[in-house]
Amino acid sequence: MTYPENVAIDAATGAIAPMVEHYEKRLADLRDVFSDRQAVDRMLAEDQNILVYQVRAFKREGCDLWFGTTTIEPGQVGREYFMTRGHFHKRRDMGEVYYTQAGEGLLLLQSRDRQIETMEMRPGTSSLIPPDWAHRSINVGTDPLVFVWVCNIEAGNDYGEILEKGMLRHVIAGAASPEIIDPLA
Amino acid sequence: MTYPENVAIDAATGAIAPMVEHYEKRLADLRDVFSDRQAVDRMLAEDQNILVYQVRAFKREGCDLWFGTTTIEPGQVGREYFMTRGHFHKRRDMGEVYYTQAGEGLLLLQSRDRQIETMEMRPGTSSLIPPDWAHRSINVGTDPLVFVWVCNIEAGNDYGEILEKGMLRHVIAGAASPEIIDPLA
Repeated sequence: MTYPENVAIDAATGAIAPMVEHYEKRLADLRDVFSDRQAVDRMLAEDQNILVYQVRAFKREGCDLWFGTTTIEPGQVGREYFMTRGHFHKRRDMGEVYYTQAGEGLLLLQSRDRQIETMEMRPGTSSLIPPDWAHRSINVGTDPLVFVWVCNIEAGNDYGEILEKGMLRHVIAGAASPEIIDPLA
Repeated sequence: MTYPENVAIDAATGAIAPMVEHYEKRLADLRDVFSDRQAVDRMLAEDQNILVYQVRAFKREGCDLWFGTTTIEPGQVGREYFMTRGHFHKRRDMGEVYYTQAGEGLLLLQSRDRQIETMEMRPGTSSLIPPDWAHRSINVGTDPLVFVWVCNIEAGNDYGEILEKGMLRHVIAGAASPEIIDPLA
């Protein structure tokens, strides 16, 4: 028997209680995610293996849905903003719902047939991520970017293709505002 | 092909844009939900067929999840607070996630084997509703109670049992605070 449960969410930090899963990704974990490897190595040489993002989650066996928060710190590696690795779901029939709580971000998506979409993430904005669209969140602001996510407990994450090939667009700091660029152009 | 989409959620009112589905439940629609039928009829005789709650939703074909908001106005019928009808899901293997945005409420749940749970709803609180627990939301405050909900698009709502038999607990205004009572006791 699975019982109902309340979870407190701190919208400013992404902290949740109770918390069932938690992981952090620091710069050294994400070396291959950023395009400017020299910038990564310079930062690591200066002992800046800083926190880039963390995921906190709640789930209970017997419930088809689980949910959690992702918190991306503000920061850059070279001109690229701090971001998540990006992934497809293992289950190609399962999407996700995001609900931004704090900060300012961009949600970068690409479909299997290489269509590209970008959407703004800001407090009060909920994003529907349909099945089989890879998704990466990017903090383009100066405060932590915090969002709540909900998906099927069996959706799973498939990081392979994005880790190997990267995404079709990069988001970099422009002179006045973030720029979405084609890294192959 | 289903494309990603952003939805703006107004946490204070529950308004969403774009909105795909919308319905309102007024007092006359809910005559059989409240236990004090004389109070209902007095209010209706005074032409107070007022709004009790409304549901706004967003969905797209091709996505396994949909989401929306429920907004329950503050108010009472006799000593009972304004509330939703309450339902099980048609799909007995599918639960739901709530995330309270504004106001002050109680979430009343009962399992098929007649176990009872109540949980507080307040801003920042997310509630996991496991599969096959009937759920009813009750506004025990003085402002609108607004929550976001997310579930599988195939979960469906089965109102029959709760409409016919009611729920095993009622929430009424006590002298100082809401009281949860057994209507058969």
